[in-house]
Amino acid sequence: MNRHLEALKEFLRFESISADSQYQEKVNNGALWLTQYLKKIGLTTETVQTSGNPLVIARNAHQEGRRTILIYGHYDVQPVDPIELWDTPPFEPTIKEGKIFCRGCADNKGQMFVYIAAIHDLLEADEEPNLNLIFLFEGEEEVGSPSLAPFLEKHKEDFACDIIAISDTGMVAAQTPTMDYGLRGVACLEFELTGSQTDLHSGLYGGAVKNPGSALSQLITSLHDENGKVAIEGFYADVLAVEPWEQEMWSKEPTLSDETFRKNAGVPVLFGEANHSAAERIWVRPTAEVNGMGYGYQGEGSKTVIGSKAFAKLSFRLVPNQDPEKILKLAVQHLENHCPKGVTIKIELEHSGKPYLMNPNSSFGISAQNALEKSFGKKPVLVRGGGSIPIVQDMKEILGADSLMIGLCLPDAKIHAPNENYPLENFDRGILMAKALFKELEQQL
Amino acid sequence: MNRHLEALKEFLRFESISADSQYQEKVNNGALWLTQYLKKIGLTTETVQTSGNPLVIARNAHQEGRRTILIYGHYDVQPVDPIELWDTPPFEPTIKEGKIFCRGCADNKGQMFVYIAAIHDLLEADEEPNLNLIFLFEGEEEVGSPSLAPFLEKHKEDFACDIIAISDTGMVAAQTPTMDYGLRGVACLEFELTGSQTDLHSGLYGGAVKNPGSALSQLITSLHDENGKVAIEGFYADVLAVEPWEQEMWSKEPTLSDETFRKNAGVPVLFGEANHSAAERIWVRPTAEVNGMGYGYQGEGSKTVIGSKAFAKLSFRLVPNQDPEKILKLAVQHLENHCPKGVTIKIELEHSGKPYLMNPNSSFGISAQNALEKSFGKKPVLVRGGGSIPIVQDMKEILGADSLMIGLCLPDAKIHAPNENYPLENFDRGILMAKALFKELEQQL
Repeated sequence: MNRHLEALKEFLRFESISADSQYQEKVNNGALWLTQYLKKIGLTTETVQTSGNPLVIARNAHQEGRRTILIYGHYDVQPVDPIELWDTPPFEPTIKEGKIFCRGCADNKGQMFVYIAAIHDLLEADEEPNLNLIFLFEGEEEVGSPSLAPFLEKHKEDFACDIIAISDTGMVAAQTPTMDYGLRGVACLEFELTGSQTDLHSGLYGGAVKNPGSALSQLITSLHDENGKVAIEGFYADVLAVEPWEQEMWSKEPTLSDETFRKNAGVPVLFGEANHSAAERIWVRPTAEVNGMGYGYQGEGSKTVIGSKAFAKLSFRLVPNQDPEKILKLAVQHLENHCPKGVTIKIELEHSGKPYLMNPNSSFGISAQNALEKSFGKKPVLVRGGGSIPIVQDMKEILGADSLMIGLCLPDAKIHAPNENYPLENFDRGILMAKALFKELEQQL
Repeated sequence: MNRHLEALKEFLRFESISADSQYQEKVNNGALWLTQYLKKIGLTTETVQTSGNPLVIARNAHQEGRRTILIYGHYDVQPVDPIELWDTPPFEPTIKEGKIFCRGCADNKGQMFVYIAAIHDLLEADEEPNLNLIFLFEGEEEVGSPSLAPFLEKHKEDFACDIIAISDTGMVAAQTPTMDYGLRGVACLEFELTGSQTDLHSGLYGGAVKNPGSALSQLITSLHDENGKVAIEGFYADVLAVEPWEQEMWSKEPTLSDETFRKNAGVPVLFGEANHSAAERIWVRPTAEVNGMGYGYQGEGSKTVIGSKAFAKLSFRLVPNQDPEKILKLAVQHLENHCPKGVTIKIELEHSGKPYLMNPNSSFGISAQNALEKSFGKKPVLVRGGGSIPIVQDMKEILGADSLMIGLCLPDAKIHAPNENYPLENFDRGILMAKALFKELEQQL
């Protein structure tokens, strides 16, 4: 265990933030370290330069007649702001109360590393699984994986596989093994409103010009009706309804109660669409969220100004069978149609990804459930995920393979937020799970 | 002229930003320089430490039986953000096309300086006006003058005066002398909304918790009805209607047309209350403006986060007979009542100041009109102002004296904004105006 943890710590120290181009070199260094590490433990490695961040690929010696398993992960991480809310330095892995705290420890370095640790142990003990393994680690997941799908499309044969394993989701509670059989899609955009060409004095002009901050607020408010439903015309047209067996399964599972979600979110009350549990709101219903807004004077004290510009960053979480491109078109139309008079709007589309859904009780699904039961000593809970891993549906379409999503971080992992954390116990059990999964998949032949 | 301009440049270089405590020492240095300069030109000076920034006071040798004129100004300036939009360094006075560009050149250092230059010339030429002069310069105007009114209240007798002269407003157009006989009041507050205790992943929780950015937008939107009127209950209760003679006077003056306001504001279209000209919207109607907003991720790229907190800075411009304290109470009530479920609100009240109105055709008003006509060669336009100089009404209440507001900067002076500027011609004519005003006021006895 200890050597795996020490290696993970080294890996975590790379500030591989993909959303901010200032971190380019640190992203590259992270990829380089990962390649060298995979080589050191006995795999054949390859670093592929894309138009974005490098792909790190590793294989054991493949043989005919074996099942091929692709293990996917990402070595890039989210930005760290607001940095002042971190209790420990964001890129210095710190162990406290049985957890490791560091940006990327849960999302995704610490989770992807269980497969590396597992194969490391097995190769060393001369117990290489009777499987063709392909490790595929990208550096652009947090910005929507723009390079990976085109790359796979070009090299389909090299990545042909029977099933994909991914640990990039979460457990519904501590000691509760969890398998995820669905993901929401995502579609992001940013827009900017401009009023006057420069900031104006709010005394000298206030009352006679449209305030871009007010206009921004109106436009964001227009995205929802008074009941919290998205008010963009046609937004719900392609939404697949939740299945009764899913509703029943989730309603019986105590770790999926509304109260659990409320506590995990750390909010006084939940909020959302009527007639849906929190689990359903997050897993089977789409959203429109504002992720950032900026306008006017944000410093200390007051400045009585009418700002020239105001901006907002929006993201939509999508469910089967919504299409991100269609949703972005509807959103742009809505924003343009609802843009208040007196300001002009400029919209920039950003990354997007499709939603995903598989059958958790397929033969491969059962393999994953068995591996979870063996390593955690309990039958897993079957869930869908609210987050997005856009490449999962892309891989389904390109490689024809489903993804077994086996989450190892906890609901309070604080991924994308300050104090991201990951229990050492889950790292440990995750390595056992990976070994058990290899055993299960060997028997599929 | 040249020596006055050189002195003004020295004065402008002090980064005397009162809204940001980081600039405290620079504010103090500005006050010290001003005191020493006033002493050097032959006045008796005094620097008064308040609980905030120092007051700089200067007098000529007072004699019984003269009119006493108080000249008010402020040596503090607004912050410089957004600094990237300045064409020249904000605190390096730069002469271009007959204008001086620098933070504070118009608001207020360059305007207050015409009285200093005038008395400098007159004392040197042994032509001291037959007036008792009190120069009163404060360093907290941009943060609502918290120290000045309590100070004057305590030292009423020392500042007893017949009339007050202030050049801290603007001209309606170039070569158009302007006298201002009214001001809007102001009331500022800031509020913060909190959802969860930390930022949340918008995939893992989006749809089941209230988004503080959406809540902020709803709350800001709730401040106005769909026609742009302020929707706070009771907001308009005490508003004094514009007088028909004012409406007539303004509608006849070409420099006060809606089109002029639109051009000066640099906006494609005007916006505001129906049935009011732009001049009326700005001078006789109150407003609610958002001056700043911040929420979530504002960096490069996208970050799919539901921020923990969102904040906004608001200011209300008030007209006679609205009371800032009453308006702030109504605003707090409105914000609390309209705060969306799922977030908590924290409101902080900031500076406020009362509106002001005088009769422009009083005997002192006529003196100011005459001085403007003599120095600019044209009858002045009579206007009210949309901005706020809260101390003006305070001085009326404490000292019983009206304020002659003689603006010397242009509509595109960009006060409170990047590239603040002030024509050298107006500095020159302003000095002539000050000398003419002293002459006019001597004759009032």
